[in-house]
Amino acid sequence: MVDETLFDYLHMSIVEHYNNENESDVETASAYLSQIGYRVGYSLSERLSKDNARYRDELDTVKYLCKELWICLFKRQVDNLRTNHQGVYVIHDGRFRLLQQTLTTMNKPIDSNNRLHTLYIAYSNGLLRGILTNMGYPCRVTAEIVDFGVRFQIEVNPVVGQK
Amino acid sequence: MVDETLFDYLHMSIVEHYNNENESDVETASAYLSQIGYRVGYSLSERLSKDNARYRDELDTVKYLCKELWICLFKRQVDNLRTNHQGVYVIHDGRFRLLQQTLTTMNKPIDSNNRLHTLYIAYSNGLLRGILTNMGYPCRVTAEIVDFGVRFQIEVNPVVGQK
Repeated sequence: MVDETLFDYLHMSIVEHYNNENESDVETASAYLSQIGYRVGYSLSERLSKDNARYRDELDTVKYLCKELWICLFKRQVDNLRTNHQGVYVIHDGRFRLLQQTLTTMNKPIDSNNRLHTLYIAYSNGLLRGILTNMGYPCRVTAEIVDFGVRFQIEVNPVVGQK
Repeated sequence: MVDETLFDYLHMSIVEHYNNENESDVETASAYLSQIGYRVGYSLSERLSKDNARYRDELDTVKYLCKELWICLFKRQVDNLRTNHQGVYVIHDGRFRLLQQTLTTMNKPIDSNNRLHTLYIAYSNGLLRGILTNMGYPCRVTAEIVDFGVRFQIEVNPVVGQK
């Protein structure tokens, strides 16, 4: 048994908890989970900034997130990163670990039309927002389930992402 | 950055979240956190039971919890285990990791009279209850902060611990 398992179970447990508490209101539950993720991301980022050189450039920061950080957070690199070079980044992770783990353990099939599934990625959504915000890039993050993975869209914007 | 950090931050984040949400009602917040811990403990226990021989005896089960499991869960062994041989076990961990990490990161001193501190051990409380319940020993778990550590009292009872 490793720490990874403890984390996974805790993540699943809070997802289930909010799922049960707000069964009829997925948006409220997602917002809570996203807030929790935001706080974790913000704190992590503070810790990381002590260990790493500052990534000043916006694109460099997103690349750092997709390479080094993604491995720490989600145990693999992203499959694809695209940008319009105007502050919008689309990250595709074709086997998004937290979603897959959660569904496998809960013994549920992946169904991108299932509204409840958004709960399984809401924490990660907030996590990315918290990390980037603390790195100097307040942003809006949305996510959708695509096949077996997740596509995150990040819109860097100094206004929307602020707390 | 390791998985341990991710877990710690997530734990702290949910503690903070419930702390803010139920500022005037520590009992409700503690109950929520304990339920989340219970669910994690119950699931973990199911996974553990696949890998380990079944501990049939009550005392053996508690000893297994205090030795092998405690290291996985809290990164050290307990300092002391006492029992009245009638289903009551008192476990003392003189440097309880989740409490210390939380207080250190939040930059707060340990204060056993601070009611909010019970929030920092509520998750662990439920965790122990979930593990033992799934191992066949439904129980009540209470905890108090003693000096720099935590003293958990487990009362094994087939009635009270049931979901």
